[in-house]
Amino acid sequence: MADPQNAAGEAPKRWLKLTVAYHGAAYAGWQWQPNHPTVQGALQDAWRTITGEEPKLTASGRTDAGVHAEGQVVGVETASTTEPRRLLRGLNATLPEDVVVRAVEPAPDGFHATHDALRKTYRYQLHNGPVPPLFDQSTVWHCRSGQLDIERMGQGGAHLVGRHDFVSLESAGSERASTVRTITDLAVTEHHADGGRRIDITVTGDGFLYNMVRTIAGTLVEVGRGAQPPEWVAEVLAARSRDAAGQTAPPEGLVLARVEYA
Amino acid sequence: MADPQNAAGEAPKRWLKLTVAYHGAAYAGWQWQPNHPTVQGALQDAWRTITGEEPKLTASGRTDAGVHAEGQVVGVETASTTEPRRLLRGLNATLPEDVVVRAVEPAPDGFHATHDALRKTYRYQLHNGPVPPLFDQSTVWHCRSGQLDIERMGQGGAHLVGRHDFVSLESAGSERASTVRTITDLAVTEHHADGGRRIDITVTGDGFLYNMVRTIAGTLVEVGRGAQPPEWVAEVLAARSRDAAGQTAPPEGLVLARVEYA
Repeated sequence: MADPQNAAGEAPKRWLKLTVAYHGAAYAGWQWQPNHPTVQGALQDAWRTITGEEPKLTASGRTDAGVHAEGQVVGVETASTTEPRRLLRGLNATLPEDVVVRAVEPAPDGFHATHDALRKTYRYQLHNGPVPPLFDQSTVWHCRSGQLDIERMGQGGAHLVGRHDFVSLESAGSERASTVRTITDLAVTEHHADGGRRIDITVTGDGFLYNMVRTIAGTLVEVGRGAQPPEWVAEVLAARSRDAAGQTAPPEGLVLARVEYA
Repeated sequence: MADPQNAAGEAPKRWLKLTVAYHGAAYAGWQWQPNHPTVQGALQDAWRTITGEEPKLTASGRTDAGVHAEGQVVGVETASTTEPRRLLRGLNATLPEDVVVRAVEPAPDGFHATHDALRKTYRYQLHNGPVPPLFDQSTVWHCRSGQLDIERMGQGGAHLVGRHDFVSLESAGSERASTVRTITDLAVTEHHADGGRRIDITVTGDGFLYNMVRTIAGTLVEVGRGAQPPEWVAEVLAARSRDAAGQTAPPEGLVLARVEYA
């Protein structure tokens, strides 16, 4: 199924935008690594299999080991002329069951999924209550302790909306030029699911520091269980110290929900 | 943790009602069998571990290999005096992760989960569309073919509501005194889930024959994809022959949702 090259031996290139969902449990994260299963590696293998071409993939960003995605965006520069619908079907027939391509669309010339991303939305998923989750157990953090107060969690989260230095909510060891980011929206909602109380923390921003959403989740849980008042979240930000914040919530509750482009 | 017996060596008995959820993939069904993992076996093991007692369990009915439950009801006759809340916690701490006890409640003396059941509700879960399911893949039947018409499916399903001989919808090999059952409600609904179109067929009745809900699902899919008109479902019933119906849908889409008692 390799695509033909043109007479000069140079295939005309085009760019495609792939929307990719994955269950992160079996992967050492998005980013390719030697000797570890990665989502990027799985996608590269599938692309090679169906097009015969070594793909150049860009992604909206890395996701860490164990983190899931509903709408990771991946850019591909390709000489393949196969129509998007057939690529979608071929990729899904080739990929392992825990990686699914949900859409293949034409993208502007030079599309770069990292650089061109405007906003990302993550969702942190909690299962709250004494009875453990069942069907959703690999995609939630089970918070046994008491009844989390989502009104308080929302009040706490409101302190994070806006342009702030989020260094207090970044895991140590990361190196970034700036720790200033803008969160445009943060919502805490609940519904009944999987025999219990499911609480979602949904955060949209122009970018996120290392482990930032997981630390937001751990911090808002402190507020939700009554250990801290909502105003404490403002103090955490102002402290500019990771020690000020709550724990980093586990990766299995985190989902990269969607990425927006111009 | 074994419970003490009374002076005469006879422990006073009481009956409890357990609401049990399970993911059926790893089990050869509810009913205990030698040399196969079963949900009943897992629950018996957990009960023995936390009470020291060999339990007598009754269930609302068997579920087949691979079928899930949100609300299987299990009756236990026990001499244990441990309070229900502690039993719930102990069972869930002991059970494998794919079996969860959602509630432990006192039941009337002599409670028998099979004989006392008035109505059961099953849900058959379909994922419809060209893109495969991801997070829900072990609990849905992926129907690729076209866009299922749920209005037609509902019209077809309406022919099943009422008291009928359902022998056409029973898998061969089962032996029952009567194949007459009453379906009190059948609904076909849809919502967006797991990146696609999720269609639920929810059926409530006073009892179900072997593979009946799965055959109803396979039959209504024939109507939904336009291969048969809704009226064909009435013909299927009237034929009193399993050959008249659609295929038996796979077990992984079936969930025992709840069981009602007086």
